[in-house]
Amino acid sequence: MRTDEQTLLDRLRALVTLEEVDLSSDLEGVRTEDLAEAFVRLEIEEQLGLMRRLDAEVAGDLLVELPTETARRLADELPDEVLAHYLDVLPMDDALDLREEIEPERFEALLNVIPEEDADEIRRLLAFPDNSVGRLLTEDFVAIGPDTTMDEVLALLRDASTEAFETINYLYVLSDNRHLLGLLTLRRVLRSDPAAVAREVMNPDPITVEGTLGEEEAARLLARYGFSALPVLDARGRMLGIFTADDAQEILSDADTEDVLKLGAVSGDAESYLSLSVGQLVRRRLPWLFMLFLAETFTGLVLRYYIPTEAQGTAVGQLAVIASLTLFIPLLIGAGGNSGSQVTTTITRALAVGDVRTSDGLRVLRREFGVALVIGLALGTAGFLRALSWRSGFEISLVVGIALPMIVLWAAAVGSVLPLAAKRMGFDPAVMSAPFITTFVDATGLIIYFEVARRVLGLTFQA
Amino acid sequence: MRTDEQTLLDRLRALVTLEEVDLSSDLEGVRTEDLAEAFVRLEIEEQLGLMRRLDAEVAGDLLVELPTETARRLADELPDEVLAHYLDVLPMDDALDLREEIEPERFEALLNVIPEEDADEIRRLLAFPDNSVGRLLTEDFVAIGPDTTMDEVLALLRDASTEAFETINYLYVLSDNRHLLGLLTLRRVLRSDPAAVAREVMNPDPITVEGTLGEEEAARLLARYGFSALPVLDARGRMLGIFTADDAQEILSDADTEDVLKLGAVSGDAESYLSLSVGQLVRRRLPWLFMLFLAETFTGLVLRYYIPTEAQGTAVGQLAVIASLTLFIPLLIGAGGNSGSQVTTTITRALAVGDVRTSDGLRVLRREFGVALVIGLALGTAGFLRALSWRSGFEISLVVGIALPMIVLWAAAVGSVLPLAAKRMGFDPAVMSAPFITTFVDATGLIIYFEVARRVLGLTFQA
Repeated sequence: MRTDEQTLLDRLRALVTLEEVDLSSDLEGVRTEDLAEAFVRLEIEEQLGLMRRLDAEVAGDLLVELPTETARRLADELPDEVLAHYLDVLPMDDALDLREEIEPERFEALLNVIPEEDADEIRRLLAFPDNSVGRLLTEDFVAIGPDTTMDEVLALLRDASTEAFETINYLYVLSDNRHLLGLLTLRRVLRSDPAAVAREVMNPDPITVEGTLGEEEAARLLARYGFSALPVLDARGRMLGIFTADDAQEILSDADTEDVLKLGAVSGDAESYLSLSVGQLVRRRLPWLFMLFLAETFTGLVLRYYIPTEAQGTAVGQLAVIASLTLFIPLLIGAGGNSGSQVTTTITRALAVGDVRTSDGLRVLRREFGVALVIGLALGTAGFLRALSWRSGFEISLVVGIALPMIVLWAAAVGSVLPLAAKRMGFDPAVMSAPFITTFVDATGLIIYFEVARRVLGLTFQA
Repeated sequence: MRTDEQTLLDRLRALVTLEEVDLSSDLEGVRTEDLAEAFVRLEIEEQLGLMRRLDAEVAGDLLVELPTETARRLADELPDEVLAHYLDVLPMDDALDLREEIEPERFEALLNVIPEEDADEIRRLLAFPDNSVGRLLTEDFVAIGPDTTMDEVLALLRDASTEAFETINYLYVLSDNRHLLGLLTLRRVLRSDPAAVAREVMNPDPITVEGTLGEEEAARLLARYGFSALPVLDARGRMLGIFTADDAQEILSDADTEDVLKLGAVSGDAESYLSLSVGQLVRRRLPWLFMLFLAETFTGLVLRYYIPTEAQGTAVGQLAVIASLTLFIPLLIGAGGNSGSQVTTTITRALAVGDVRTSDGLRVLRREFGVALVIGLALGTAGFLRALSWRSGFEISLVVGIALPMIVLWAAAVGSVLPLAAKRMGFDPAVMSAPFITTFVDATGLIIYFEVARRVLGLTFQA
C-alpha cells in the first residue's frame, strides 16, 4: 500500500505539469480516500491546479475527504460558482460537512444559489445543535408502509433512485404520519413469504435515537450493538433519517484522537497533522504549556517556602540536609505524577467507553485505594533502599520511604475523584487530564514530603 | 439508558433469588450487550447462578460479550460439557473468542468433543498468527459463480441457511478454484437486469487483504473506505472469508484504549475496568512505575553531581546560589516534560491513524523544530520574567531564560525522533510513550540547565 501511495503522489505531481484540461480520465479508478491522502502532500498551487481540472463530482468528494484545514485553504481560493456547483452535486450530509470549511456568511450566500430543495434540506440539518447526531443524519433511507408486501418491497428497491438508499441493510416501516413502527432487515425481506406484509415480519422494537443526542453518544450506541445504521427520530417519535456506521466510525476515531491529544496536553479537534500549519500547531500547544507553567509556579512557591536561599540565619548543617532532600525531588514528583496519571488515564478512558459510570464511584474509589496501598508500599520500600544506597543517612531515607506511599495514595485520590466529579458535573472528564493532575500532584506532593521531613528530622523552616 | 440499565441490574438480582429453573423467558427481549453490562456488576456466585439457568445459546452469547477477565472466572467454574455445548452453538469466530478465556489444554480437549466440522473450522482459524485478521474471519459469506444470473442470486439468498450470511451487503464472485473474481453489492443485484450474469455487473477490482495481515491494519483499511466487510484471501488469492465492520470497530476501539493507557503508563490489553481485580490493576501499573523510578534515578544522579550535599569545602555563597537554582527545577522539568509529551503524543497518534508515515520524517522534524522555536522563546521569556519577579537576581533569571528554550528544543527533538525511529524499526511507536520521554527529558534537561548555569554564573561544581 505504501508504495502505491508514493506512486500516486508522483503521478499527481506529473499531472500538475501536464497541460491537459480534464484529468478525470487519468484518475479513473483511483479512490477518493487515496487521492486525498496523496493530495495533502502537495503544495497549495499544485492542489488548486489539479482541483480545477477535475469533474465537479470528483472534486467535491475530494474536498469533503480532505482534512478540514487543507480544504479550508482550498475553498478560500475557489470561486463561488465552483463551490456552489460542488454543494449541488454532493450528498446532503457531505455538503453540510463543507460548511466547516467555508465562512458562515459565504456558505449562507451559496445556499441561495443552489436548488431550493437541497438548500432546505441543508437548513433543516443546520437546525440541530452542534455535534448532535441530527447534523449527521441522512434522509436517504427506504421507508415502507406497514401493509407493504415483501414482493412490493423488492420491486420498490429495484425502482428507487440511486441515492434513495445509502445503506440497504435496513428498511423502515413508517405510519402515515411518519412514526417509526418497526424495522426490517433486507435478509428478512428476502427470506419471508413474498406475500407477507411488513407489519407481520418487522422487528417492532428497534433501538432509536433522538436528533438532539450528542454525536459521540450515538456513535458509541451504534458501535455497542454493531448495527450498520440507527434510525433518528424527532421529539415526537417521527422518523427524520438514519445515522450510519461509517459516520459513527469517524466520530469515534476523532473522539479518541482528541482524548489522546488531551492526555498529551494538546487541545483542539482531531485534525490531520500535516494539514496544520506551524502557527496552528503552536496555538494548540502554547496555551496548555502556559497554564501548566502557571500551575508549576505553585510548586516553586512550595520550594521557596521550604528551601532557604539566603544563607544567613540558617545553619550550614541544615543547608546541607535540605540539599540532600532536594536530590529526591524529581523521584517524588515522578512517582506521584506517574501514578496519578495512571489512575486518571484509566478512569477517564473507562468513562469514555462506558465501562464505568458515575454511579460506580464508590466501587472505583475502593479499588483505587487498594491499588495505591500496594503500589505505595512497593515504591516506598524501593525509595527507602535507594536513599540508603546513596548514603543519605537513615533519617532522610526514612523520610523518602514514608513520603512516597503518602504521595501515591494522595495521587490516587486526586486522580480518581477529579474525573468522576467532572463527569458528574457534566464536563468532559478528559479535561482533568494527566498533565493537569501531574502538575497539581507535583506541588501538593512536595508539601507532603517537606512536612514529613519536618516531623522526622525536626527541621524548622523559615516561615 | 442509564436508568434502564440500573433496572436491569435490579431485575437480575431479583431473578437470582428466584428458584425458577429456566430464566430464558424472563429475559426475553433483553439484548446480550445490555445483559453483559449489568452482569459485570454482579458477584461471581450470582453470575454462576444465573448462567446455569439460561439457554445454552443465550449463555454462550453472553460469555462472548462479557469482558475477558469476567468470562475467564466464569469459565473456570463451568463444567466441560456446558462449555462444549456453548462452543457448539456459537458462530465460529465467537467460539474462537472463547479460547482467550479457557486454558489452552482445556480448549484443545473441548475441540475433540464438539462436531468434527466445527472443530476443523476453528483449527483452520487458529493456524493464523496471533492478532492477524485471519483469526477473525468468518466463513459465512455468500459466494456465487461468475455466470450466475441476478435472478438466481436472489433465489439463492432466499434459500441459504440462516448463518450463511452474516453480512448481506456484498456477494463475492469466485472462480471454480475459489479465486476472487469480483464483488457485487446487493443493491447492484436488485437493480440490475434479472437476466444479467455476475461477471457483467460485478466490481472486478475490490480491495482485499491477506489473512496474515495485522488485525489493526486491516481494521484501519476497512474504516478508511467505510466498507461493511473486507474479503480475506490466502497467499495465492483464494478467498478464505470476510472480515466485518463490527469486528473492525471493536479492534480500533481496543487499540485506541491501549494507546491511551500507554500514554498514562499503564500496560496491558483493553479490558473492562470493573472486571479487573486489584491484583491485576497493580500488575498493569507497577512494572511501569518501577521502570520510571529507575529512570528517574538518573535525574537524581544529575542532581547529586551538581548539588553539593557536604557543606565543607563549598562556599556558603555558592550554596545559596545553588539553592536558588533548585527553586526552578520543577518549572524546567515541567516545561521540558510537557512540551516533549505534546510532541510525542501528536506524532504517535498521527502515525497510528495513518496521517503521517515514516517517509514524512523530514517534514515532521522541520515543523516540530519551528514549533519548538516559537514555544521555547515564549516560555523562555515567561521564565525569565518570573525569575526576576521572584528577585532571583538578573544572572539566575538569565540562566532560566536561556535554559528553557534549549530544553524545549531538545524535548521536541527527542519527542519526534523516538516515535518515528521506533516505527521505522518496526516497533509500536506508542512504546516511546509520553511518560518515558518525560522522564528522559527530566534528566537531560537538568544537565542543560546546570551547564548553562555553570557558564553564565561561573560556578565550579564538585566534580
